[in-house]
Amino acid sequence: MNYSQLKQNKALRINKANFLMNRKWIEEKNLIECLECLIEPYDKVCIEGNNQKQALLLSDALSKVNIEKINNLHVLQSTILFPLHMEVFEKGIANKVDFSYASIYGTRFAELAQKGDLKIQGMHTFLELYSRYFLDLTPRVCLVSAEKADFDGNLYTGANTEETPAIIEATAFKDGIVIVEVKEVIEKLPRIDIPSDWIDALVLNPKPQPIKPLFTRDPAKISNTKILMAMLAIKGIYAKYGANRVNHGVGYSTCAIELLLPTYAESLGLKGKICEYMMVNPLPTLIPAIEAGFVKRIVSPGGEVGMNEYVRSRPDVFFTGRDGALRSNRCFAQMAGLYAIDLFAGATLQIDIYGNSTTITSERMPGFGGAPNIGSNANARRHTTDAWLLAGKENQKQLNSIPNGKKIVLQIVETFQSSGAPSFVETLDALEIQKKMHLPLPPIMIYGEDVTHIITEEGIANLLLCRTIEEREQAIRSIAGATPVGLKRDKIKSDELRERRIVTYPEDIGIQRKDATQDLLAAKSMNDLIEISHGLYEPPAKFLRKTSN
Amino acid sequence: MNYSQLKQNKALRINKANFLMNRKWIEEKNLIECLECLIEPYDKVCIEGNNQKQALLLSDALSKVNIEKINNLHVLQSTILFPLHMEVFEKGIANKVDFSYASIYGTRFAELAQKGDLKIQGMHTFLELYSRYFLDLTPRVCLVSAEKADFDGNLYTGANTEETPAIIEATAFKDGIVIVEVKEVIEKLPRIDIPSDWIDALVLNPKPQPIKPLFTRDPAKISNTKILMAMLAIKGIYAKYGANRVNHGVGYSTCAIELLLPTYAESLGLKGKICEYMMVNPLPTLIPAIEAGFVKRIVSPGGEVGMNEYVRSRPDVFFTGRDGALRSNRCFAQMAGLYAIDLFAGATLQIDIYGNSTTITSERMPGFGGAPNIGSNANARRHTTDAWLLAGKENQKQLNSIPNGKKIVLQIVETFQSSGAPSFVETLDALEIQKKMHLPLPPIMIYGEDVTHIITEEGIANLLLCRTIEEREQAIRSIAGATPVGLKRDKIKSDELRERRIVTYPEDIGIQRKDATQDLLAAKSMNDLIEISHGLYEPPAKFLRKTSN
Repeated sequence: MNYSQLKQNKALRINKANFLMNRKWIEEKNLIECLECLIEPYDKVCIEGNNQKQALLLSDALSKVNIEKINNLHVLQSTILFPLHMEVFEKGIANKVDFSYASIYGTRFAELAQKGDLKIQGMHTFLELYSRYFLDLTPRVCLVSAEKADFDGNLYTGANTEETPAIIEATAFKDGIVIVEVKEVIEKLPRIDIPSDWIDALVLNPKPQPIKPLFTRDPAKISNTKILMAMLAIKGIYAKYGANRVNHGVGYSTCAIELLLPTYAESLGLKGKICEYMMVNPLPTLIPAIEAGFVKRIVSPGGEVGMNEYVRSRPDVFFTGRDGALRSNRCFAQMAGLYAIDLFAGATLQIDIYGNSTTITSERMPGFGGAPNIGSNANARRHTTDAWLLAGKENQKQLNSIPNGKKIVLQIVETFQSSGAPSFVETLDALEIQKKMHLPLPPIMIYGEDVTHIITEEGIANLLLCRTIEEREQAIRSIAGATPVGLKRDKIKSDELRERRIVTYPEDIGIQRKDATQDLLAAKSMNDLIEISHGLYEPPAKFLRKTSN
Repeated sequence: MNYSQLKQNKALRINKANFLMNRKWIEEKNLIECLECLIEPYDKVCIEGNNQKQALLLSDALSKVNIEKINNLHVLQSTILFPLHMEVFEKGIANKVDFSYASIYGTRFAELAQKGDLKIQGMHTFLELYSRYFLDLTPRVCLVSAEKADFDGNLYTGANTEETPAIIEATAFKDGIVIVEVKEVIEKLPRIDIPSDWIDALVLNPKPQPIKPLFTRDPAKISNTKILMAMLAIKGIYAKYGANRVNHGVGYSTCAIELLLPTYAESLGLKGKICEYMMVNPLPTLIPAIEAGFVKRIVSPGGEVGMNEYVRSRPDVFFTGRDGALRSNRCFAQMAGLYAIDLFAGATLQIDIYGNSTTITSERMPGFGGAPNIGSNANARRHTTDAWLLAGKENQKQLNSIPNGKKIVLQIVETFQSSGAPSFVETLDALEIQKKMHLPLPPIMIYGEDVTHIITEEGIANLLLCRTIEEREQAIRSIAGATPVGLKRDKIKSDELRERRIVTYPEDIGIQRKDATQDLLAAKSMNDLIEISHGLYEPPAKFLRKTSN
């Protein structure tokens, strides 16, 4: 039996493409033909699609290959973000996909699947998709993106290194074919992120990439309600547990917390006690907390538009390379988000009466990205911190009396969404969606078992302390305000839960609603952020325009 | 405020050491003095100590630095394996430690801690220790080991790449100091595993490393009882769930399963249905299953003595580099072990009546390594397989009716240990140990919540199907044989559980105890393994001597 088939087949493919290449380099005009030599039908093809960089030229070329030659591909792609990513499915070049986040294309995926044109193999969190690259979903070919290369093909991935190292390692060390598009070729790289040794082919794509400022929020848009919830979070949870290793999701609620750190949190004496270590992208709204010495270390899964110069001048805070630029790594950062943090705070769209929550409330199936990974208890965690031990001590849901710790998973949500829909429901729409779309499981973002606290503008529900499922239900109803779920609360039970500090209203911990105003924010506008950053932060123009309106 | 302190301080240290170095190279005679320039008191120093490679020369030099100059170090070290690793603690150069596995030195750690000479900060699984390197335990200096380097300092880590990339990335990109010992310097490396760009200093250590064959088990030593349990595992669990993505712990029970794959499992028609994808070191006992085409892909956290040539000639199965040698990666493999596998099978020393188990049964505190990570449910998993869905469907312990999958976590254990001690106990010794050693938590390897099945020579307990904690207890008692725990079983309840297939005895699934003999093993000796490997497997001499006894 031949146990070197992959290696031999790779050599054949490279040989076939050789006449189109100059050493490892492909000219753009030969790219499609070259891909037709390097890819074969039924290949697993991993297309890099991160939050903030995309192998767009390669994706485009892949969508233009001769379907007679290349077909039945199985695409592995963590984030599907642009129309041209869909072409390869629309044209039928690929008919299988494994992904993490499909943004606005979830619906179209579902349609293609229903027509039988696409098999959606699985929806993953980022980390589990990368994990499978090393077990049963190893790419035969990967199409990735880098900032710069030298002539030998060493890569500089810089601030948006993200998942590139994981994809390339899985492919290169399984005799797969690694194809990279780079924006620039230079003689000497500012630093090497990935050795040329792992790269088979490169193509130049000098066109600027359409990068979105996914993690940028304008402080001016933070409402007083969000500020109130942030105060509840800081005083009621961060302070109580001493949450010093933290991840924040994307949204105005967590931005409000960030902007209250050097003001409200500092006034409570929490500097050096909470949020010193954070696993987040370089969030502009963290600038005041960094400048105040409140936040000390940040590990980032990726970069953020406009933050490069700021990061470069704060190497004690961020991971940076020899050249001074950020080194992000989505895989390692997600690992830290699973195992090293004590508290995750995020938002959601719908929560049921048991605390199950999801951002998927229609047949659009965008996926979850990293939230389930970061917002879940790591059962295997064995190192302790005070925050984790206290949450574990409070936890009433253990199989027996053997003590354990628990990650604090906090959902911050207004009782009604801005659309007017209630955030709290008796039953998640996800259960209906599962049926309609014939999914193996309902698309739950965070299971109730993992959620420890919910904050609304009404107050805090501490689900850890609930002894029964009925108590949990009443605790959630007690902070669900005027939603139908909230109106069905049992007043007597609710009072009892408040007595037992399972339900906490602002006044119970000395927070006055009237104090929750923009005055508390360390920065009230994008311009404030720029100023506090000493002019190092350079937000995209559209944010500046909006602020001056 | 200065936000580049680490960078500036690093430059100072390198400057100070410069006169002792030739570019990046340190001569061995200057090593101690050089470390005294590159390390400062209170540094976090990460010492590479893997299963199968050690930065021994660097550890030795560290233990000989002038304690007046270098002290109060905080050591980060995943595996503490050799006497000289202890020197740095014994001499008081370091007084803090974070680790994953302390092998035989756990007791000494505990003594030093009790005397106040050492602060044991935390016991981790491998993956959480690496995670913390990126958040709150970032090494200031790392001392790592590689096979070869070129003159520029590019590294070849080869078969035992293990955790080196994770350690170096965390250190290098936080302006830390990366010091490497290499066995050999050559002009052109067979492949590059880590770019020279990330390396600050190197020293040559041509002395052969004392590598232990940790994952090698002699087939001749597999008892009929182990074979019976392996048959139960294959027919009762692997086949039932269709477990195709699997991790095996270290021990004769799982070796027995491996050696039954091409014989017993094949006779049951399970080829292509179970164990095609495995996350394991290159286990010699997997050779027959690989040769039979039963096991198709293996991702390895590290290498194994004697397996290099075999791996090199089976690149379709193993991850290998351009040069043909294994590329292991403990971090990525452990990730796959958490998120990509459907079934973990391992052994343990003590299980209580709720299924909590641990290998720590005395005041020796060796640590857990990777077992809790691989042997725990990944709450955030969102992709589905039939195996995972079926286990989830059976699972009775959910907070409410929202369906989810579940990782199969199987403990295989004889009712009595070879020492004569019962494996089943009413209460784990770990609870006593916690008290005696003033630990924040008892040292549990796998919590009952995560364990789905237990196999003994008596039969299988399926804990998923138990509706109450009392049923779980009776299920465990029912397979605990003649141990005190087993003798306390309620016969009527036990029969009822058997009726409901919660408890399964061999005869219930057509397994005859008398059939469980060595005849079923695909290899009966080390020599068989060598032969089946076509002479490619080269076991350490001591195994051959033992076999011929």
